[in-house]
Amino acid sequence: MSIIVQKFGGTSVADTEKIKHVADVVMHERNLGNDVVVVVSAMGHTTDHLVKLAKEISDTPPSRELDMLLSTGEGISIALLAMALQTAGCNAVSMNAMQVGIITENIHNKARIVDIKTDKLKKHLKEGKVVVVAGFQGVTEDGEITTLGRGGSDTSAVALAAALEAERCDIYTDVEGVYTTDPRIVPNASRLEEVSYEEMLELARVGANVLHPRAVETAKQFKVPLRVRSSFKLENKGTLIVGVDDMELHKPVTGVAADLTQLRIVVCDVPDTPGHAAKIFTKLSEANISVDMIIQSYARKIENTNDIAFTIDKGDLDKTLKTLDELKSEIKASRFQVDDNIAKVSIVGAGMIDRPGIAASMFETLAKLGINIKMISTSEIKVSCLVDENDAKRALVALHETYGLGCDEVAEVKGTLPEEELN
Amino acid sequence: MSIIVQKFGGTSVADTEKIKHVADVVMHERNLGNDVVVVVSAMGHTTDHLVKLAKEISDTPPSRELDMLLSTGEGISIALLAMALQTAGCNAVSMNAMQVGIITENIHNKARIVDIKTDKLKKHLKEGKVVVVAGFQGVTEDGEITTLGRGGSDTSAVALAAALEAERCDIYTDVEGVYTTDPRIVPNASRLEEVSYEEMLELARVGANVLHPRAVETAKQFKVPLRVRSSFKLENKGTLIVGVDDMELHKPVTGVAADLTQLRIVVCDVPDTPGHAAKIFTKLSEANISVDMIIQSYARKIENTNDIAFTIDKGDLDKTLKTLDELKSEIKASRFQVDDNIAKVSIVGAGMIDRPGIAASMFETLAKLGINIKMISTSEIKVSCLVDENDAKRALVALHETYGLGCDEVAEVKGTLPEEELN
Repeated sequence: MSIIVQKFGGTSVADTEKIKHVADVVMHERNLGNDVVVVVSAMGHTTDHLVKLAKEISDTPPSRELDMLLSTGEGISIALLAMALQTAGCNAVSMNAMQVGIITENIHNKARIVDIKTDKLKKHLKEGKVVVVAGFQGVTEDGEITTLGRGGSDTSAVALAAALEAERCDIYTDVEGVYTTDPRIVPNASRLEEVSYEEMLELARVGANVLHPRAVETAKQFKVPLRVRSSFKLENKGTLIVGVDDMELHKPVTGVAADLTQLRIVVCDVPDTPGHAAKIFTKLSEANISVDMIIQSYARKIENTNDIAFTIDKGDLDKTLKTLDELKSEIKASRFQVDDNIAKVSIVGAGMIDRPGIAASMFETLAKLGINIKMISTSEIKVSCLVDENDAKRALVALHETYGLGCDEVAEVKGTLPEEELN
Repeated sequence: MSIIVQKFGGTSVADTEKIKHVADVVMHERNLGNDVVVVVSAMGHTTDHLVKLAKEISDTPPSRELDMLLSTGEGISIALLAMALQTAGCNAVSMNAMQVGIITENIHNKARIVDIKTDKLKKHLKEGKVVVVAGFQGVTEDGEITTLGRGGSDTSAVALAAALEAERCDIYTDVEGVYTTDPRIVPNASRLEEVSYEEMLELARVGANVLHPRAVETAKQFKVPLRVRSSFKLENKGTLIVGVDDMELHKPVTGVAADLTQLRIVVCDVPDTPGHAAKIFTKLSEANISVDMIIQSYARKIENTNDIAFTIDKGDLDKTLKTLDELKSEIKASRFQVDDNIAKVSIVGAGMIDRPGIAASMFETLAKLGINIKMISTSEIKVSCLVDENDAKRALVALHETYGLGCDEVAEVKGTLPEEELN
């Protein structure tokens, strides 16, 4: 029998009615003849509620105790799902991370999994049980409870699938799969039957937050086939995410996406002598600020000076300005310019590797629309252009058309796209 | 340094403000120079809420999963209390039963503790930390989570005190100690400075539900000095519960109590041949019905027959009648008579062991008031009389007076007496 790992997020187990529906989905997979391990997050707003309690006690709750606290959230959902399965006549057992042995580093709030014991899991599966495992949590070799941070439950599911050599890891969500672009912006966006890990990573980074990049990285590393699918349309197979070698490449571009969460900072008139850029980005990195696109341009408004421009997450603005202010005299910058009306528009596709001219066709499409490109960055399978925020939607629609990504019908989006969840 | 184990129930940790107060109480004990281990229950109505969720899924939730679910309640309160202690500058660490190693039998919903590992606890204490331990829960040798059932958190605290050879176990509650009787009924009831385990057991059984009998039994077994005290009046030492040998006996009667939770059943006209009583009480016991007082009287309304009367908890009435109906023809009873307007009034005192005449003075007191005694039962340190429910209050006041238990002032009762909690 093959093992399938299924993962259901917080909105899928938000109340007992939804938990009963999840039990139906689990039993549907079991009836196909597979062994099933289910990973669940905490119910709906449980994590928010627990964080609120902690904040009532301390503005900065100690991280070890925060993990003790948050891990109770999944403790509730696993027990209720196991009850729902048993009540529906399906033998099931719940296990927390300590019981399974999901071993992590000894770091709180964002631990990484280092090992998963499979003996107890396999014993239960052998006895014909569905095993319901708490996502998002782990335990150190010393028995300390940890949590995995953002994308934790997705990562738990993928890591379990890898450890159990599962045939597939199914990530259930309230969209029907991965789309060529955001269907809220481009109504005829089409669902992708298949996408590679690499493409999925690039799509996730530019705003298609169906699946956390960390989980995709783990799946890629251990070659775990991932399926993103809806628990409300089981006949729909969703999107399969596999290695690029296992795919047949049809189109150079798989998807287009826009990211509106960044802003651009220009450090103006930095003397054109070595080491200044290094200083800036070392300091930013020490302050734990992620920098995405970087351009150093010879502005030459003042002889022998450069402008250094880069993009950061909007939430990091204050931290970044503080860091730059501390550096200002040292790097002899005249001023810092902040531009927060920007959008990063990207095309992604493993198929562009061997096909030159894809980037050029993107620039041409934008030029035809009279859209000014402020910055460009490229990777092997992605081209990103920074444009004015107001141009993002037009750019997306046009690029989707340019690369022939649309389907004939308007995509049906269940509810809204998922917000990024803590776990 | 001496070790003190403190226990706080669900109402004491009902919200984050109350948890901060508990942290103050803990630090007060620590500042006296003691090592402190704190046992807490789940916050206020958490357990009720979790049971409600389980019932939404199944009328009879599987017991293993119910334990998995309920154990999360204490997981929340221990983490929050450890946070509150650290925030107040007191080094602290929370531990669930699995982390401590509170080993129980492999029985769900009402497991008994068989062993407590103390190595990790002692290591933390040695490092100067307050250890906050989840009450009510345990773990089997196989890593299965169990709960201890009613009185569980009190029992966890006493068992920990025994395992750690603690100097004392302090049970914090919202009354100021154990009283000579219910201060709501007899306003000048006085707080007992000391009471023996045996007396406490008898008082608990007849309705003074400050402390669960199971915890008192455990304390008695391991000779753990227990103190019942209020977290709002730390200058008040509450009531110390110790072995009868460690007490100086002053009065023959320590306390009087009334129990209104029982009803009486009379099985009428059972033939006076051997074995009928045995049949009845064996069947009742098999149906898990606790019988308290029993009287077999030669009613002789019909020649060679007996009436057999006994008392049970009001909640067990349906089960009891069903059991009796199944027996009716076999024991040839004419009918069953149910009397639910009864009260059991008791006097308790280790001092009555060597003093005859105490029971007689009780009967005399009741006779003077014209109160009819329906049944009598006695133990070494208790005399109980079944009376009409309407006579209970008068009886209690008079007996309290007879044995000189009152004090000069009216007892100040904080809020209401605690309802019996699930954990």
